[in-house]
Amino acid sequence: MTDQILPQWQDVDAAAHRIKSQIQSTPQLYLSRLSLSLNIDIWAKLEIFQHTGSFKERGALNALLLLSEKQAKQGVIAMSAGNHAQGLAYHARRLNIPATIIMPEGTPFTKIERTQADNANVIIFGKNLSETYDFAIKKSIKDDLTFIHPYDDPAIIAGQGTIALEMLAAQPDLECLVVPIGGGGLISGIALAARHIKPGIRIIGVQSDLYPSMKQVLAHQPVETFGLTVAEGIAVKYPGLLTRQIVANLVDDIVLVSDNSLEAAIYELTRTAKIVTEGAGAAGIAALIEYPALFQNQKTGVVICGANIDERLYANLLLRGLVRDGRVARLRIELADQPGSLAKVATIIGEQGGNIVEVLHQRLFQDVPAKITTIDIVMETMGRSHGERIVQTLEESGFPCHLMARTG
Amino acid sequence: MTDQILPQWQDVDAAAHRIKSQIQSTPQLYLSRLSLSLNIDIWAKLEIFQHTGSFKERGALNALLLLSEKQAKQGVIAMSAGNHAQGLAYHARRLNIPATIIMPEGTPFTKIERTQADNANVIIFGKNLSETYDFAIKKSIKDDLTFIHPYDDPAIIAGQGTIALEMLAAQPDLECLVVPIGGGGLISGIALAARHIKPGIRIIGVQSDLYPSMKQVLAHQPVETFGLTVAEGIAVKYPGLLTRQIVANLVDDIVLVSDNSLEAAIYELTRTAKIVTEGAGAAGIAALIEYPALFQNQKTGVVICGANIDERLYANLLLRGLVRDGRVARLRIELADQPGSLAKVATIIGEQGGNIVEVLHQRLFQDVPAKITTIDIVMETMGRSHGERIVQTLEESGFPCHLMARTG
Repeated sequence: MTDQILPQWQDVDAAAHRIKSQIQSTPQLYLSRLSLSLNIDIWAKLEIFQHTGSFKERGALNALLLLSEKQAKQGVIAMSAGNHAQGLAYHARRLNIPATIIMPEGTPFTKIERTQADNANVIIFGKNLSETYDFAIKKSIKDDLTFIHPYDDPAIIAGQGTIALEMLAAQPDLECLVVPIGGGGLISGIALAARHIKPGIRIIGVQSDLYPSMKQVLAHQPVETFGLTVAEGIAVKYPGLLTRQIVANLVDDIVLVSDNSLEAAIYELTRTAKIVTEGAGAAGIAALIEYPALFQNQKTGVVICGANIDERLYANLLLRGLVRDGRVARLRIELADQPGSLAKVATIIGEQGGNIVEVLHQRLFQDVPAKITTIDIVMETMGRSHGERIVQTLEESGFPCHLMARTG
Repeated sequence: MTDQILPQWQDVDAAAHRIKSQIQSTPQLYLSRLSLSLNIDIWAKLEIFQHTGSFKERGALNALLLLSEKQAKQGVIAMSAGNHAQGLAYHARRLNIPATIIMPEGTPFTKIERTQADNANVIIFGKNLSETYDFAIKKSIKDDLTFIHPYDDPAIIAGQGTIALEMLAAQPDLECLVVPIGGGGLISGIALAARHIKPGIRIIGVQSDLYPSMKQVLAHQPVETFGLTVAEGIAVKYPGLLTRQIVANLVDDIVLVSDNSLEAAIYELTRTAKIVTEGAGAAGIAALIEYPALFQNQKTGVVICGANIDERLYANLLLRGLVRDGRVARLRIELADQPGSLAKVATIIGEQGGNIVEVLHQRLFQDVPAKITTIDIVMETMGRSHGERIVQTLEESGFPCHLMARTG
């Protein structure tokens, strides 16, 4: 792949004409509430509204439309546990091109299901992505299938770059673009296009601090990655060979965001912008939340690149967000183990405006005398200080208690 | 109010010019995945992207801009527990008009907070909306404040109608509009505009089957309403006097949706359209889910009118959706109460591809011998049939068990 010629902005321009009628021209929304609270003018490009829930369709479709007739008849193969698989399978089906997708063991059910629903031949192979990759490459040679890399491919990069054309057409005065980086396909395409249209624009990449692979490669450091992140869509160990050159040439800086910021960004986008995002999709907003000083008063375009989050994880992240805000709190109280105790406590909490949503009795494991019981009360409050007022009132009424750090 | 003149489509047109630069011109999105699964061409007008999360800003802003200089200086008053309050407070603040909002007792914290955050003078009064209403009217007279009704006001109706102008401009070939009805302000404005632009268009209203007040009034039946619905934004007992005339004249039919359909609609909009909606906001989609035959192959525009749902309720609705889909299931198993039993069961479930997320032991209350214990296992599956396969394998391995209807 190293001997491939780097794509140019003209490739992005050509891709835009090629794919235009077959993808959603997604809305770019001014996030008024987040803009106010962060003091940044935030324009969000909502790639979550593509049919398969992510920007990956653009590159995949461009690559499919560039196949020769013979290649299209023979079919394509890809390796992906996620959005590239779904985007490729969807457009391959539309275009009647046979698609084989190799996914690693442990890929979530929903991603397998949705890829199969688009008629792709899904094969589960490999304990990790590099085993899966090797298998896919061998199968592509054996069965004469065109391998479509998720990011390190000029056609993929050019397709993703079409996002920048739409962003700057909708809002020509954007001063800064904030773009998540996994393998680097998205930011490479965007940088090629945006630098051409508006040479002075700032382009900032965002990686998970658990997967800072592109930043490390460009700093000539060894790549070190760490366990699980909520942003699995950008948890990439091997940045592309093409993409690292483009990023080195055209991107101003890469910032790293914590999983805490990613969670907060998903929660804030739900609460204030009313959209659903996956971890990688919220990475740009996480960067604004973690480094607001870098973007103060700037007209900042953020690519909200994907929304394929497991619904159970998403629901739990929202509940954790309420806990973080202090709007759901867990109170541990010591009570005499006798009739009426709970009623008194519940009355006080109710009078103070707290809404009890769960009561848990701890009887077996506790370091208090047997005549005393410990109960945990989960309650909704107006926020942290309201919870603290409730605690104070309970203590003044003779019920020793404290707020727990977590409800779970 | 009965002696007020009904608004005309020209009022909608004038409102559009009046408010245009001060509200979001919201995107109208083709919901490709829901369209495929329901066989309806669905265009969703996303009023959730207004600053305060609902369409109510349009009418409120129009009413504010129609105040005389003296009225604006003196200030406005409204009665609302919800989106009208927030929309009015937000634009009153922007325009430097003092706003007083009367809310009934029991209004959720977040709604009070957000209205106060826009500098409104919030007064909590009244055990129900009619007590609150009486108080607001008296105070408006006493303090010489202009009362702004949430729906039964020509300026409000005209403002809401601007949505139809945008919908038909973006997609002139819409054949049918589906619009939630509470007091009727939204559908009245939309009907005035849409009937003028496209006289043959079908206009279908949607009410909660627990609050079918407009449908009952138009059928000359007594209004009967029932308890709590997830769509509290359209849980209105008293349809407007102006709005009922407009609906009677211009709306083709009103359909009633169950809370089950409303929940399913919120869940599907999250899962497939990647947007957050409140119950009333999802009512149009609930109608398509409950009565798909009414809309088959029609180009249908649906107003997604609001997104101000309590985050805890929202998270719980998503979890309930997973249970309804069978993607989270609760399994009750009888086990010998001895070391190793749980390990065997967990191994079988894991081998069958189920993901255990919670284990609950029931020891105190159970109708089995003391040497047997009952455990409940909450697990993720690929869906209902996968859950049933797991049950079958466990039973064949000597563990009597069954799937519970609910996980909660």
